[in-house]
Amino acid sequence: MVDFDRANQTAVQRMVSSRPILKGVARARDVIPGMNDNLLLHAGPPITWERASGPMRGAIVGAILFEGLAGDWDGARALVTSGEVRLEPCHHHQAVGPMAGVTSASMAVYVVENETHGNTAYSNLNEGYGKVLRYGAYSQEVLEKLRWMNSTMGPILAQALEQSENGIDIRALLSESLHMGDEGHNRNKAGSFIYTSRLSPLIAATDAPDGEKASVLQFLADNALSVLNPVMAGCKAMCDAAHGVEGSTIVTTMARNGTDFGMRVSGLGDRWFTGPVGQPDGLYFPGYTAEDASGDIGDSTITETAGIGAFAMAAAPAIVSFISGSAQDALNATLEMYEITETEHDHFTIPFLDFRGSPTGIDIRKVVELGITPRINTGIAHKEAGVGQVGAGLVRPPISIFEEALVAFGESYL
Amino acid sequence: MVDFDRANQTAVQRMVSSRPILKGVARARDVIPGMNDNLLLHAGPPITWERASGPMRGAIVGAILFEGLAGDWDGARALVTSGEVRLEPCHHHQAVGPMAGVTSASMAVYVVENETHGNTAYSNLNEGYGKVLRYGAYSQEVLEKLRWMNSTMGPILAQALEQSENGIDIRALLSESLHMGDEGHNRNKAGSFIYTSRLSPLIAATDAPDGEKASVLQFLADNALSVLNPVMAGCKAMCDAAHGVEGSTIVTTMARNGTDFGMRVSGLGDRWFTGPVGQPDGLYFPGYTAEDASGDIGDSTITETAGIGAFAMAAAPAIVSFISGSAQDALNATLEMYEITETEHDHFTIPFLDFRGSPTGIDIRKVVELGITPRINTGIAHKEAGVGQVGAGLVRPPISIFEEALVAFGESYL
Repeated sequence: MVDFDRANQTAVQRMVSSRPILKGVARARDVIPGMNDNLLLHAGPPITWERASGPMRGAIVGAILFEGLAGDWDGARALVTSGEVRLEPCHHHQAVGPMAGVTSASMAVYVVENETHGNTAYSNLNEGYGKVLRYGAYSQEVLEKLRWMNSTMGPILAQALEQSENGIDIRALLSESLHMGDEGHNRNKAGSFIYTSRLSPLIAATDAPDGEKASVLQFLADNALSVLNPVMAGCKAMCDAAHGVEGSTIVTTMARNGTDFGMRVSGLGDRWFTGPVGQPDGLYFPGYTAEDASGDIGDSTITETAGIGAFAMAAAPAIVSFISGSAQDALNATLEMYEITETEHDHFTIPFLDFRGSPTGIDIRKVVELGITPRINTGIAHKEAGVGQVGAGLVRPPISIFEEALVAFGESYL
Repeated sequence: MVDFDRANQTAVQRMVSSRPILKGVARARDVIPGMNDNLLLHAGPPITWERASGPMRGAIVGAILFEGLAGDWDGARALVTSGEVRLEPCHHHQAVGPMAGVTSASMAVYVVENETHGNTAYSNLNEGYGKVLRYGAYSQEVLEKLRWMNSTMGPILAQALEQSENGIDIRALLSESLHMGDEGHNRNKAGSFIYTSRLSPLIAATDAPDGEKASVLQFLADNALSVLNPVMAGCKAMCDAAHGVEGSTIVTTMARNGTDFGMRVSGLGDRWFTGPVGQPDGLYFPGYTAEDASGDIGDSTITETAGIGAFAMAAAPAIVSFISGSAQDALNATLEMYEITETEHDHFTIPFLDFRGSPTGIDIRKVVELGITPRINTGIAHKEAGVGQVGAGLVRPPISIFEEALVAFGESYL
């Protein structure tokens, strides 16, 4: 007979003790297990072209154009629908990507190693704001920026991190940034400044031309999401370490592809439990309304899965000006999440709760019993390909996937 | 008949509307009005060698050794006691300096211009941690670091800022950093990361050797007080703009020299109101106790004078781990300061108070009427020259100086 409580303690202990270190930047095809030139990784659980949302389709087309595999939308679509180019979740390849999360073979990716448990995780580079692939934009301007990121920023970051003695400790960075008003998902402003500052001497010491070094530092400093992708890879490394514990009801993946919300559970192997994505409730940029919103999308829910993001909202009262609400709402969000989690994080602490650890390790039993689903902070994509971000807000997964997972758990263990 | 309320509104309006911009770095003798090679500027109101505290004496000796005017303690002391080297407050020269604040003619200083009102303010460069002049240390190691700051960091910062189109907006930086857990006096962690990030592309583009650029960026990134000195000059620029309003009871200077706490009031000209400094109440570094503490010292109280520091404690709950107390104490500190201030700052807002403006513009009438003195966050120096920082905590000025100022106000205006 499995001791479920003990299994959960083991799972969250593995999650919380994980120390993910950003070690390098490399081409996806050179480092991501199973990556190849005819494969695109994407956010969320598995999806086909036919069921894909507007922004997911736009990002798929953009990545195919970026790789030079086709010259236009129709050509790109044909490659995918024929199966010549395959789609697989980032999560099937130890990777994560924000929003559409589409990652192709020649893209530069971050390499994050979990020093505690030995596993590795990957994420693409953050593109900043405006028209970007992750929100489904695929114009020439978008592809130009991706090329600059791949040919200039990627190699400079790679050389900078190679020179670094110990890499960049993502857990330590998050510990600091949660004391500086970040929650690590929608607000990564402090973390991105820490990241830029820590990288700056390393970048200055590379052999790249001064102008290129300056342009990379400017890009990092101007992007309050610079560190989101290494943070996501760090959270992925923590969550993967907690996966596969027999008898554990702890959630180790939450991810959305714009159509389906997918979840995986530590003690239930690689099975996805999926349901329809919700529509985020939040603030829209001028000129947009909820009518324009795509369904919830992105692997960035790995942050909530690891105990930050909406779970650490109390650390980030300034976020309410971005996603709506009051400072008290931010406190309440975190307090509610203690109800459905197994532990309080040793390293992620919340000053305004007198340094109480953030609620960590979602237990599907508690979710179903209390009817409280996890809170998620998220960006909101336009529903049509090519437009981009239209707002930011809050969303929750469908409770059905927790109920279904609990039934599956009963079938497996009872 | 002067309308005192209206005068106070004018004074705080001038303070709050001030937009200080960091424009450059230059030698003190080349830019600070009245600076010369036989003059040392120091923190607080006027002081003589005879009445100076241990850390103030140590810093004076260190600056004289740094300038090569004498070769040892006795030689340096003789120069000061004979009047060959004069001592004057930084505040008499549009300048401010943390702790001892000793600034000599060849030192590199920040130049901050108040774009709104046209006045300029200055501050020396921050030395980081350990044995530093500002805490009264004056060993070879201290002087070596000052030389590196002057010969390597200063020129690189000067060139970086010269290349910058608009300089660095200190008010905007503080607006951001107060949303990132800083209060701008004892905690400048977020601000220092913002500062390093904003400088990094400018520094990368200078023509200095890569190794020197990397060393400067490393020094800035590793020092969570990097931005304190430009912030202090920014606050000085704001407070000076509010000074000299006829009939105003608003405090425009609070500063300590380790022996006396000095205050000046907008409508009372350049007269200092002084009383004995307090002993900070706080947390001591391992091995030290209150017995080791110097009296309160430094011009950094210019931050509280401008509406940040202890006045914005509610923005910085993480600071309580450094100066003692709970998150609720941090909130209460700010709430109390609304009682004795004229306005709420338009640009410095506090997320956990739902973006209420920080309490700004101390009114000596309210201080005396309510018996509530301003709260001040501070570092604590060892009472002997040469030791350095031993802790950090909270302190208040003596109420006698407010009473004395109010009497003087009555004599001038009633």
